[in-house]
Amino acid sequence: MPLIVQKYGGSSVADAGRIRHVAQRVAAAKSAGNQVVVVVSAMGDTTDDLIDLAKQITDQPSPREMDLLLSTGETISMTLMSMALHGLDCDAISLSGAQAGIRTDTLFSRARILSIDPTRVRQELGDGKVVIVAGFQGINEDQDVTTLGRGGSDTTAVALACALTADECQIFTDVTGIYTADPRVAPEARKLKDISYEEMLEMATLGARVMHPRSVELGSVYGMPIRVASSFGSEPGTLIHEVSSMEARNKVRGIAHDLDVAKITIVGVPDRPGIAATIFAPLAAAGLSVDTIVQNAGREKFADLTFTLSKTDLPRAMKLVQGIAKDINARDCISDSDLGKVSIVGTGIQNAPGYAARMFETLFKERINIEMITTSEIRITCVVAENRVADAVRALHRAFELEQPED
Amino acid sequence: MPLIVQKYGGSSVADAGRIRHVAQRVAAAKSAGNQVVVVVSAMGDTTDDLIDLAKQITDQPSPREMDLLLSTGETISMTLMSMALHGLDCDAISLSGAQAGIRTDTLFSRARILSIDPTRVRQELGDGKVVIVAGFQGINEDQDVTTLGRGGSDTTAVALACALTADECQIFTDVTGIYTADPRVAPEARKLKDISYEEMLEMATLGARVMHPRSVELGSVYGMPIRVASSFGSEPGTLIHEVSSMEARNKVRGIAHDLDVAKITIVGVPDRPGIAATIFAPLAAAGLSVDTIVQNAGREKFADLTFTLSKTDLPRAMKLVQGIAKDINARDCISDSDLGKVSIVGTGIQNAPGYAARMFETLFKERINIEMITTSEIRITCVVAENRVADAVRALHRAFELEQPED
Repeated sequence: MPLIVQKYGGSSVADAGRIRHVAQRVAAAKSAGNQVVVVVSAMGDTTDDLIDLAKQITDQPSPREMDLLLSTGETISMTLMSMALHGLDCDAISLSGAQAGIRTDTLFSRARILSIDPTRVRQELGDGKVVIVAGFQGINEDQDVTTLGRGGSDTTAVALACALTADECQIFTDVTGIYTADPRVAPEARKLKDISYEEMLEMATLGARVMHPRSVELGSVYGMPIRVASSFGSEPGTLIHEVSSMEARNKVRGIAHDLDVAKITIVGVPDRPGIAATIFAPLAAAGLSVDTIVQNAGREKFADLTFTLSKTDLPRAMKLVQGIAKDINARDCISDSDLGKVSIVGTGIQNAPGYAARMFETLFKERINIEMITTSEIRITCVVAENRVADAVRALHRAFELEQPED
Repeated sequence: MPLIVQKYGGSSVADAGRIRHVAQRVAAAKSAGNQVVVVVSAMGDTTDDLIDLAKQITDQPSPREMDLLLSTGETISMTLMSMALHGLDCDAISLSGAQAGIRTDTLFSRARILSIDPTRVRQELGDGKVVIVAGFQGINEDQDVTTLGRGGSDTTAVALACALTADECQIFTDVTGIYTADPRVAPEARKLKDISYEEMLEMATLGARVMHPRSVELGSVYGMPIRVASSFGSEPGTLIHEVSSMEARNKVRGIAHDLDVAKITIVGVPDRPGIAATIFAPLAAAGLSVDTIVQNAGREKFADLTFTLSKTDLPRAMKLVQGIAKDINARDCISDSDLGKVSIVGTGIQNAPGYAARMFETLFKERINIEMITTSEIRITCVVAENRVADAVRALHRAFELEQPED
């Protein structure tokens, strides 16, 4: 009997009516002859409401207590989901992260799953039950509840699917799948039938916020097929799975973009060993996440060093960098917060130089200036002015003929 | 170092402000040199809100899922209490029923505590922390969360105090202690400094709804001193403790009353062996709880049998009893729903016949007719008309001089 893991996010279980609706989908999957494990997030804004409540008590809630507090959100939604299934005469049981054997490290609020002991889940499945598991939570070696941080419920679902060697992990959300570009920007964007883990990772990292990269990585390591689909309609969505290199399509699969880009350039950095560490160690210590780094070849032992980061981090980063620039006798530092990124993504495109050329040519014809270029094995990214990002996405979507159905 | 267990009910932790207020009291108890364990109920109406949510999903929620759902209420209040203590620089940790080692049987929604393994609580106390424990919940042999039913949080507190051999269990609530009578009925009622377990049990059973009889019984078995006091003021409240028979005061300690009394009389019951079982077994099977039973000596092999019960149960009971009366060839059955009970309570009063006489004389002088009389070792109860109960309480309070301070 096929075993599938389904995950429903907060908007899919936001109220009693939606929970009953999801329960019908789950019951249908069971009736169709599957063993079904369901992972749920907290209802709608529950998590934010609990955070607000904690803030009314203290400015700096203890991470341990905060995790235990937040874990109640998923406990509520999972028990209600179980009740809804009972109401449909579908046998079901809900399990907390601890009961489902999800063991994590001790880093509260951003715990990593160390192992999953699926004994209880298997036993309940064997008894013919749908098993509902609280997303986002686990238990550490001290028997304390931990939460998994961003992308937590997706990670629970994929990790459980891997531990159970499920046939498929299905992520139900408020979009109908992965698109060749953001349909709000490029209305001609087309839903992909499938995508490789690597392509999905690049798309996720670059702003296609359907799934957190963390859960895609996990699926990639274990080769777990992940289907992303809408919890409202019945379309098949997009399958994220292994695409062997034999079949590498050598074509652009999608255009990703991100409007949250700022950059800082340190001008005239003395070109000596260790200087990069001197600049980036304090930023890391301050919890500031740096994205692309480009260092221009120096003139007479001086270099210009540019890096991008999130716009919200720019003020704090600029303050730090100004101090560092002074310390290392750099000439100046300047920032720009009106930037964005546009990327073409596709397995094998690095081996096909024609793609890069076509990308640059397309942007040139649109009179879009390229500020920075970075590449990976399956991606080429250009940093451009924020107000030209949408134009760039549309132009590239047309240039690579992404509106054409794949065979 | 003295070890105390404090319990705060739902109204004491109804919002963030009250939780911070309670945290100050807890921190003060810690600063005064005590080890402190705090048991909390769910905030205000949280439990009712969760029940409503479940009812939006299904009419008949599974008891297992319901218990897991309801347990989140105490998890939320305990984590917030812990955060509030941290905010006062008072080291604290919150523990679920499972983490606190509270093992129960498997009867969901009305589980009984089987044992408590206090290892973790002791360890955290040893580390200098205030330990906050979720009331009302435990874990069964299947690692499933159970709830303890009515009086659950009080029971958690007293049971933990017993398992930890605490010096005192303090129940903080919205009344300032146990009174000689309900102050709303008898304004001259006086707060008792102390009361025996047996007296408290009678008071609790007879309508003084400060503590559930279950937790008083538990305290009695283990000889755990229980203090009932207000969570808002700083008065010492009332101490419930062992009063040795050597010290038995042989005096009336309080007047209890209950307005929720109805009676059914079966007239002309054939006086043959087993007839009582024939009548009461079907009532028990229907979950109808019968209180006082009185059978009058029969005339010519017929008896009148009268029993009292809760007013809400009267219609169902009457329907059942009418059928039974017909089956056993009783002459008639009649009911009265406008009744109440008034009781005098005090250790040893059964051995001092003067008290009963004074009670009956007092009611006679007030022209209050006595419908039924029942007695226990430490209590005499008269069933009277509902609209005379308040008069009876005031008259008895005066007659036994309860407004006079005890030495």
